[in-house]
Amino acid sequence: MRSDVSLGIGDDAALLDVPAEHQLVTTTDVLIADVHFHSSATPHSIGHKALAVNLSDLAAMGATPAWATLGMIIPDIDERWLEKFCDGFFYLAKLYDIDLVGGDTARGPLMVAIQLMGWVPRGAALKRSGARSGDHIYITGTLGDAGLALMHLKGLRDLLPDQAATVRQRLDYPCPRVELGIQLRSLASAAIDVSDGFVADLRHLLRCSAVGAEIYLDELPISKVYQSLYGEIGWEPALTSGDDYELCFTAAPDRDDEISTLTELFDIPITRVGTVTIGSDIVFFDREGQQHSPKHTGYDHFGV
Amino acid sequence: MRSDVSLGIGDDAALLDVPAEHQLVTTTDVLIADVHFHSSATPHSIGHKALAVNLSDLAAMGATPAWATLGMIIPDIDERWLEKFCDGFFYLAKLYDIDLVGGDTARGPLMVAIQLMGWVPRGAALKRSGARSGDHIYITGTLGDAGLALMHLKGLRDLLPDQAATVRQRLDYPCPRVELGIQLRSLASAAIDVSDGFVADLRHLLRCSAVGAEIYLDELPISKVYQSLYGEIGWEPALTSGDDYELCFTAAPDRDDEISTLTELFDIPITRVGTVTIGSDIVFFDREGQQHSPKHTGYDHFGV
Repeated sequence: MRSDVSLGIGDDAALLDVPAEHQLVTTTDVLIADVHFHSSATPHSIGHKALAVNLSDLAAMGATPAWATLGMIIPDIDERWLEKFCDGFFYLAKLYDIDLVGGDTARGPLMVAIQLMGWVPRGAALKRSGARSGDHIYITGTLGDAGLALMHLKGLRDLLPDQAATVRQRLDYPCPRVELGIQLRSLASAAIDVSDGFVADLRHLLRCSAVGAEIYLDELPISKVYQSLYGEIGWEPALTSGDDYELCFTAAPDRDDEISTLTELFDIPITRVGTVTIGSDIVFFDREGQQHSPKHTGYDHFGV
Repeated sequence: MRSDVSLGIGDDAALLDVPAEHQLVTTTDVLIADVHFHSSATPHSIGHKALAVNLSDLAAMGATPAWATLGMIIPDIDERWLEKFCDGFFYLAKLYDIDLVGGDTARGPLMVAIQLMGWVPRGAALKRSGARSGDHIYITGTLGDAGLALMHLKGLRDLLPDQAATVRQRLDYPCPRVELGIQLRSLASAAIDVSDGFVADLRHLLRCSAVGAEIYLDELPISKVYQSLYGEIGWEPALTSGDDYELCFTAAPDRDDEISTLTELFDIPITRVGTVTIGSDIVFFDREGQQHSPKHTGYDHFGV
């Protein structure tokens, strides 16, 4: 047990010590079958992903994760299912030194609600607000692979077995960018994690910062699998499909060199994909300087 | 917005200030239809109860509530249902000056997951451990009315309309003992809230404190409605039915007078119902000194 957990599971509530001069950072995500994970997802991957998506939110704040609570509804007592879920959950929790400090379970249709807590030094959190005209826009990792995996699962896209395995890994086992987010505290002007789709999440960031953006389509970072399919699918999945759990952030142009060193440090691409502008629109350009409009802007659970 | 909320809903996570020299207290409860609320429960009462049961957990820690996150799964966009739920939730939140700092919604079978956070001065939290042999055992309010309401709803118990309305109020609109819990910080040796049933929750407290108890059945606090039915139902519902959300706590015998003043201060009965003993058993006595055994010890979601 972490030394900052005075009381964990087993009392009416947990008792936790936030370090002095730090702020508490807290996020919650609810995951249900068929919406947040495909019916073929393994319990192990569900355990991983439920924690990973919350870690991704903390990463986007530049926060250090510390404690989680877990609310679960499970259809019936299935010891093996639960054991595999826990294997996935606690493997990731251990990697990030996260203590489970509270929980509640009930019987019913499968649902996982995680609340993850962590901290940042007072005033150091990354927010969605803070991007300024002229700032560069960056994306970590690559976009669209989780979307490709979903298209494959739905029978909308044929993939070779190796390709399917690669993108399925991206869908089921997202890698939160926690350490990178912590490094970005002193570099980025604004940040958000890409969960609903790049354009949808970029819009959130731009709205909070009261700015617009131009995006260079040909700079969007895509995987080798995506590249091999690009001729058929174009930029659409990279722009609009969700579940990538990469970070989208902005930084002043003079921080570009420091950001390049992060690419080496973490061994993940960090790609400049655009520039913050005045106004509130997103304008898309291809390498010829032609302007484009994406058809959709991401996934909305209550959208039509 | 509270001044200690640096960032509320609308970013990747909330940013909160725990006061210096205080510890964070956090609890989570998952509520689903037909398990935690009857199918006839109104959305207003569900909103109230979902927050109240979490407040009750913080009350049992002696904590001051501050912030909540809300995860919801709702079957479909029903604006009126949601508005009434929010009316019930925010009415209680406003009473206790609680800010909603995070949320997540999805579409599916009705589920409400609340995480409530607050704080206590460092080292001042009430725990389940701490009861000592010779301590008195107290109960706030009365026991068993929520259980009577459930029996009535299930058609197992006839009640007059006034009686039904009274106990239904106890089931649907539990009153968390937050202020009382805060006062108990300096008085009680251990505390727990009565959610699963008096005996079941007392057992948790005793186990954490490594002690036993003797309980005086004829001292159990019951309402006028319960008293009128006592001849038919006996002590069973007061001992074993859940959903009362009263506090059960222990205190050294010399604190008895101070505890009596709390009864006047808060205008709720605080009744001594037993004594902490060495060992690990609970022994029940009636006024003649006869020993009794209750048939059941409370509700277990995965029990048989």
